[in-house]
Amino acid sequence: MIERAAVLSTGDELTTGRIVDTNSSWIADRLFALGIDVTAVLTVGDYPDRLAWAWKHAFELADVVISTGGIGPTADDLTSEVLARVLGVPLVEDAASAERIRQLFAAFSREMPLNNLKQALMPAGAVVIPNGLGTAPGYRVLHGATHAVVLPGVPREMKPMMEETVLPWLRGLRGDEVYLSRVFQTFGLTESGLDELVAGVVDPAAGRLAFRASFPEVSLRLVVHGRPDEAGARLEAISARL
Amino acid sequence: MIERAAVLSTGDELTTGRIVDTNSSWIADRLFALGIDVTAVLTVGDYPDRLAWAWKHAFELADVVISTGGIGPTADDLTSEVLARVLGVPLVEDAASAERIRQLFAAFSREMPLNNLKQALMPAGAVVIPNGLGTAPGYRVLHGATHAVVLPGVPREMKPMMEETVLPWLRGLRGDEVYLSRVFQTFGLTESGLDELVAGVVDPAAGRLAFRASFPEVSLRLVVHGRPDEAGARLEAISARL
Repeated sequence: MIERAAVLSTGDELTTGRIVDTNSSWIADRLFALGIDVTAVLTVGDYPDRLAWAWKHAFELADVVISTGGIGPTADDLTSEVLARVLGVPLVEDAASAERIRQLFAAFSREMPLNNLKQALMPAGAVVIPNGLGTAPGYRVLHGATHAVVLPGVPREMKPMMEETVLPWLRGLRGDEVYLSRVFQTFGLTESGLDELVAGVVDPAAGRLAFRASFPEVSLRLVVHGRPDEAGARLEAISARL
Repeated sequence: MIERAAVLSTGDELTTGRIVDTNSSWIADRLFALGIDVTAVLTVGDYPDRLAWAWKHAFELADVVISTGGIGPTADDLTSEVLARVLGVPLVEDAASAERIRQLFAAFSREMPLNNLKQALMPAGAVVIPNGLGTAPGYRVLHGATHAVVLPGVPREMKPMMEETVLPWLRGLRGDEVYLSRVFQTFGLTESGLDELVAGVVDPAAGRLAFRASFPEVSLRLVVHGRPDEAGARLEAISARL
């Protein structure tokens, strides 16, 4: 059963503050809509030891780990190599992916630097996730009962791969549990005042409350989790009490 | 010596994809400029066990841990409580902070919900980091030889606290080592082609290369680390070879 996810974001451009990690938030939003709880987002630079650390811990925290970045052709793209080592399996070339990379270069009449074929190397046992908009295919691979999903870091490649392949596959694994949420907007109350008002109204096992303040408005989000009918009824019941 | 930092971002709004974490990137950028290497960014929701997990691991990875979020007045603000438990010390009220919170409410002629005083509770031994723009003060506290810095998640409060208090303090602890970088812009080369061209030119102990592709341009960033004079000379020497 897929209940918990970890998101792994890799790249020196993230840990040196050159770019903002918008991938993780986008992925977390999509997983939340599927009812999958993101237990952690782990972000590390392009160092083998830090990547290995992140993968090992991500596997402990989740039923599925979704990684972005580090699968391009250059020397600082280390994800597949490190993941294979963590999994204890060899890297093998996916012949169809290698052929597609060759064809892409041929189609643009460009000579292919040999290191591009590195992008066709995947941990043994991987299932390809097609990348329609770039040379680096993604893949998923099992580690015990935990799934690893490896995607490129470029958002315009990663997002369609999620939408077209990863999310439908997760939806299939997940069955029909959902998270439902409802936002209540308040005005003129402080966050702390609102918290005092609703204290004790919601049993933590039945639903979770989150506050977000942008004075003079404070929004209160109620989230419940379960099978669609039952969760819907619970959302209504708690909402009526708030 | 402060060489490695971990950034800890907390809040369900991050792990459910409601907002993008811009704090971590901003903090990483400022630390990079000080020559501090961000080994990981750890992001978790408002759960005591996940926060404790993140703090324990952040302490293992770094000489200073910078945390944002989770220090407001509401029930889902758990950072100080969890950190005190990880440190093995009690939470104590900072009298000056409690008084300031009371005064802020009085100044706005608002009744203060009692849970606001929670924001004046800090792990024993903490040193206050003033927050000129909000009710929640930040603080720093030692865990063995590792420093924990706790800041609010609201960017307009967090950023001046970093600029006015945390960064000057870190600069003092850090001494005068710096990171220097230079960006080379290329045109018409692929990222992989560029990687092949520069392979072997830079000894990893002397400098690091990072690529960033936005076809048809690929930028190459060279970063060196050390005392200002020596690092500057090394940057020039490697640049001349590239």
